[in-house]
Amino acid sequence: MSAVGKPITCTAAIAYEANKPLTVTEIVVDPPKAHEVRIKIVKTAVCHTDAYSLSGVDPEGLFPCVLGHEGSGIVESIGADVTNVKVGDHVIALYTAECGKCKFCLSGKTNLCGSVRATQGKGVMPDGTTRFHDKDGKPIYHFMGCSTFSQYTVVADVSLVAFDKSVSFEPTALLGCGVTTGYGAAIKTANIQKGDTVAVFGAGTVGLSVVQGAKSRGASKIIVVDLNNDKKDWSFEFGATDFVNPKELKDSEDIVSKLIEMTDGGLDFTFDCTGNVNVMRNALEACHKGWGQSIIIGVAAAGQEIATRPFQLVTGRVWRGSAFGGIKGRSEMGGLIKDYQSGTLKVDEFITGRRPFTEINAAFEDLHNGSCLRTVLDTST
Amino acid sequence: MSAVGKPITCTAAIAYEANKPLTVTEIVVDPPKAHEVRIKIVKTAVCHTDAYSLSGVDPEGLFPCVLGHEGSGIVESIGADVTNVKVGDHVIALYTAECGKCKFCLSGKTNLCGSVRATQGKGVMPDGTTRFHDKDGKPIYHFMGCSTFSQYTVVADVSLVAFDKSVSFEPTALLGCGVTTGYGAAIKTANIQKGDTVAVFGAGTVGLSVVQGAKSRGASKIIVVDLNNDKKDWSFEFGATDFVNPKELKDSEDIVSKLIEMTDGGLDFTFDCTGNVNVMRNALEACHKGWGQSIIIGVAAAGQEIATRPFQLVTGRVWRGSAFGGIKGRSEMGGLIKDYQSGTLKVDEFITGRRPFTEINAAFEDLHNGSCLRTVLDTST
Repeated sequence: MSAVGKPITCTAAIAYEANKPLTVTEIVVDPPKAHEVRIKIVKTAVCHTDAYSLSGVDPEGLFPCVLGHEGSGIVESIGADVTNVKVGDHVIALYTAECGKCKFCLSGKTNLCGSVRATQGKGVMPDGTTRFHDKDGKPIYHFMGCSTFSQYTVVADVSLVAFDKSVSFEPTALLGCGVTTGYGAAIKTANIQKGDTVAVFGAGTVGLSVVQGAKSRGASKIIVVDLNNDKKDWSFEFGATDFVNPKELKDSEDIVSKLIEMTDGGLDFTFDCTGNVNVMRNALEACHKGWGQSIIIGVAAAGQEIATRPFQLVTGRVWRGSAFGGIKGRSEMGGLIKDYQSGTLKVDEFITGRRPFTEINAAFEDLHNGSCLRTVLDTST
Repeated sequence: MSAVGKPITCTAAIAYEANKPLTVTEIVVDPPKAHEVRIKIVKTAVCHTDAYSLSGVDPEGLFPCVLGHEGSGIVESIGADVTNVKVGDHVIALYTAECGKCKFCLSGKTNLCGSVRATQGKGVMPDGTTRFHDKDGKPIYHFMGCSTFSQYTVVADVSLVAFDKSVSFEPTALLGCGVTTGYGAAIKTANIQKGDTVAVFGAGTVGLSVVQGAKSRGASKIIVVDLNNDKKDWSFEFGATDFVNPKELKDSEDIVSKLIEMTDGGLDFTFDCTGNVNVMRNALEACHKGWGQSIIIGVAAAGQEIATRPFQLVTGRVWRGSAFGGIKGRSEMGGLIKDYQSGTLKVDEFITGRRPFTEINAAFEDLHNGSCLRTVLDTST
């Protein structure tokens, strides 16, 4: 019997408070209002940003909430005025919306969309209310406009992209964040060109996806920097030409001078995929004088700041950042899916584990394990 | 009688030690060696960078030296293998060389040239020696590859550009630093487009030249920010549309939120022309989310650092710098001189005073006077 227009009671993982395990329990998911879509989530993965918000240091973190922002599923029902997807479509939830109409979307200069930004940051839908509540009717907040840690979720229509049903739910879930963030930072934000030299700090899903983007563009040198030697084989598998563990440098060496020496003056592009502000500085200072660009992708802890001598910039280095790889989720995701289908973009290779939804807390623990890239959860189990 | 091939004894202003007035006295200027050119300086102006180095805080400052890097003159003699200029040519000394052959020049990405950088920073000619000495034969260091505070100087051939004799020595002297630095930062480094919004922090020669560049590109709003209201009329004269004095903001306002409010979200481009690292931060944070770029031009005091939250960059702002306006002195100065001749680029308007060379210390004092832009010295007097 269809639940269209009615609340759905289903299983979700609730974050009731910071630094506590999630509670897998039943919640009520209201039907979508105008310009909203209710999705049956099929696959979702745990990303470091979920752990970051759960830790309580995210100024935008609100509790109780349904975390999760890497997920794909099937459109269960649509609210009034939804035209971009229809019931039964296979979709990826997008934490970076694309309305196509706001100042940002029309600028042609950024993938950041202003349409739902204010309410998304407050854990509510654009009308200011939540679609999640507990059995007593108490509201539960949304997260990053996605909340994929639930069997059903409601998102804004601008926060969704449909994909061809020939592609499965696992890789598309991963394209909802980490893989796209890294790959896009390389091919779109940095726009790496053939022969460029690249260094990537941090070899998680994001960093290894930067490596893939650099490889696809024909970078002449792709150096991965990571403190964990377990990441070495992976780095080479995804396309790195060199791997440097800063802990293994000689006493007289520092990572910046090592990288400058390895590249005859510094890198054309460096990427921070760690969120560590000291690493961000090193990444900038390892850039080549005159033109080297450093791109910050990692999310720093609240209140932390980056610093350098301005001379670094006056002599031609450029410091910038990238969110969701600079990718416009609705208009450009199709291209990434094609790259996946053609084999240019590895995605399945990031799945180092699969768990039933009930083991979601174990999936968070997997993240702290150096041998984990992505644990995918099946929300039906 | 020609002095070609022989030392010339002439008047120069020597900086014997930090924070002391210059000494106007006689020095000996040796003939140029291979790939060097001896110039009779006709006009030179005092720039804040000279004062900066004289203050002793420049790590590259060496004493005794001949300061000065905004100057034009006439080629007196050339060393072996000099092909780009000939005796009698009218020339501008370039502190940013252009060899056309090094990795930097060939990159097509920067105006920084590596050919004479190492020796220039050490106050010597490319062979490691000086062409200046006192009557006792004691060497006197060069400065920024120019040393225009002398009736005669010797520079590398790559540090010179000839100009048409129909243009006089005063404006070309000014094109040797401040005017080119600001104008180039606007039209080349930032590449401002029609309709862009621009804020310029600091309304000296550099800042007002940024304003000119922004105006020439059709910027829709050009906001000058300066603590000195005496700069208001000048700002409007050079093309500003608005002037904000941060000291006159209400208690509840700060300059960043004021600028964001004035531009519906922030600037497309901001420029620091102050050298103050706190201003640099404000300039970045006043940029529009998604695409705003902040360009550092000012030289900070030694050891000072810029800082911001990395979120500023992750959300699309770009932090970069500009040296000599990104202009390649030998291949691109001709274009600026044409802009001057056509009236697009005001240069003479920066000359707020003229003094005989013997009053050079008074010209340094002029710099601290808010009503001064440039004092030009005539080296023949």
